[in-house]
Amino acid sequence: MVSEFGFIDNIKSKYGLEKIGDDCAVLPKDGNTDLLLTADMLIEDIDFRLEWTTPEFLGHKTLAVSLSDIAAMGGTPKWAMLSIGVPENLWNIDFLDRFYSGWLALAFEFGVELVGGDVSRSPDKLVIDSVAGGEISKGKAILRSTAKPGDLIFVTGTLGGAAGGLELLENGFRFGELNGHTRDNLLLKQLKPQPHDTPRKLLQRLTIMTSMIDVSDGLSSDLGHICRESKVGARIYAERLPIHPDLAQYFSQNECFDFALNGGEDFELLFTVPRDQSNDVSETCIGEITEKGVEIVENGIARPLFTKGFQHFD
Amino acid sequence: MVSEFGFIDNIKSKYGLEKIGDDCAVLPKDGNTDLLLTADMLIEDIDFRLEWTTPEFLGHKTLAVSLSDIAAMGGTPKWAMLSIGVPENLWNIDFLDRFYSGWLALAFEFGVELVGGDVSRSPDKLVIDSVAGGEISKGKAILRSTAKPGDLIFVTGTLGGAAGGLELLENGFRFGELNGHTRDNLLLKQLKPQPHDTPRKLLQRLTIMTSMIDVSDGLSSDLGHICRESKVGARIYAERLPIHPDLAQYFSQNECFDFALNGGEDFELLFTVPRDQSNDVSETCIGEITEKGVEIVENGIARPLFTKGFQHFD
Repeated sequence: MVSEFGFIDNIKSKYGLEKIGDDCAVLPKDGNTDLLLTADMLIEDIDFRLEWTTPEFLGHKTLAVSLSDIAAMGGTPKWAMLSIGVPENLWNIDFLDRFYSGWLALAFEFGVELVGGDVSRSPDKLVIDSVAGGEISKGKAILRSTAKPGDLIFVTGTLGGAAGGLELLENGFRFGELNGHTRDNLLLKQLKPQPHDTPRKLLQRLTIMTSMIDVSDGLSSDLGHICRESKVGARIYAERLPIHPDLAQYFSQNECFDFALNGGEDFELLFTVPRDQSNDVSETCIGEITEKGVEIVENGIARPLFTKGFQHFD
Repeated sequence: MVSEFGFIDNIKSKYGLEKIGDDCAVLPKDGNTDLLLTADMLIEDIDFRLEWTTPEFLGHKTLAVSLSDIAAMGGTPKWAMLSIGVPENLWNIDFLDRFYSGWLALAFEFGVELVGGDVSRSPDKLVIDSVAGGEISKGKAILRSTAKPGDLIFVTGTLGGAAGGLELLENGFRFGELNGHTRDNLLLKQLKPQPHDTPRKLLQRLTIMTSMIDVSDGLSSDLGHICRESKVGARIYAERLPIHPDLAQYFSQNECFDFALNGGEDFELLFTVPRDQSNDVSETCIGEITEKGVEIVENGIARPLFTKGFQHFD
């Protein structure tokens, strides 16, 4: 029996669905600019559960996933297309109005225009395909394939919050049950992730980054993508992982660590910078690029880092 | 109870999912060129049935639908993205290999590059979103909104074949049951429609066309789109409709006429040309644009033409 990851990896590599292995395809736009393109499909009961989220959160997350892909190339998002297959039980309620209001609020924040898409009927499950287009100066897209041994590895923000939120949802906790409860911080990381806006927030770093990816599958997985595409290794340090501070209230130390290392959907950015240019980088340095082998150092002892990756929840 | 068409039209118009009401969104690309963008979602048991088609035909049709949208703007397709949600029962068989081989054969024919997409698991139904990008000289995209009273109305090829093929499928006939049977011509119109390549085939006409649309919902529906967007009327002549010649072998005269007038998915092109520039147009002239009201003339008697549009088959 082929696993889901094996099946999907096989199809993607066989048919070039991840062009040059990056978050976005890069196409020439004009003399100064490249076009960045990304597509993500979200399917009910695989990628989300309607009873766990709100229509507004789902609309937000739909666009956030695409914006994160563009951010991970260092680009600026410009437009998006939204295709949606809607089962009949959602036609007569305000579901789609609320979905679009969540989508449009994030689009407005990022200056993204909704230029098209499709609306179709679906037999039973809600199906969404989110496509976004962005721009970047010609030849400046930050790829996964250009990390060099000796580079330092950085990550923005904190890790594991989205995985912790997913675990809480699976255990019956819902957003907003207790007014202002800190639990909601973790649920929001899962349900309403905030994509990065690289040109605004990391502008001074873009020129020194040698590679970048967004943490969508999980740190171990996404670091593995950089190493595989760049044909390098990596060493990261367990004690440096920026574990989401609210996780410790609900989970054991081991669980928190596992969420930060292997949990998906944090949509933080993982990037590399040459050591001699890294003085001004204020994000968290979690390790360095090596010649080969991916390992994690814990209490001074190095062990191989296996890719666990993001497991869908059913 | 809101109808499917009411629901979808409402959502599309409310959220601008059909930008300026055309087959593609038009965005500036560079100083000389506009970018055309189109997205179409195809969902199992709504838009196709696996037991009626072959994986190769389905791959072909997935791309054909997008290429037809670009042809309907007068553009040249350049790239495509394919997102696909696959149920587990299709993982271990050669379904996807065959699907992609059909897709890639048509892509090769049109010089279209597969630049990205997504592969996901689906709980039960196969779900496909096809996105394509094309190019056209700046400001030259042929819109639905620019037909003028007095223009003549033309249609390429023949009409009703795809609807007749669908009717045959619904009545239990399958492609290839009888070697070389003419019935297969109609089944192929439904299962493996051939999109137009406007720049190659209609190049000399593009400069004189005042509006264009592809016949995807059905002639009555798509003519209605042109009239609504252009704020004009139309008069067409029943006896001029280019009914697919093989339909008469299987259907009554009334049925053939209904398929040609209201059947969807022929992916022929419907366009308008000023009367004084129409001498060289060799496609079928089916009528003329008027000030207001959409009517059909049959045996010398005019009656209002109601939009029946394409009905999904379940």
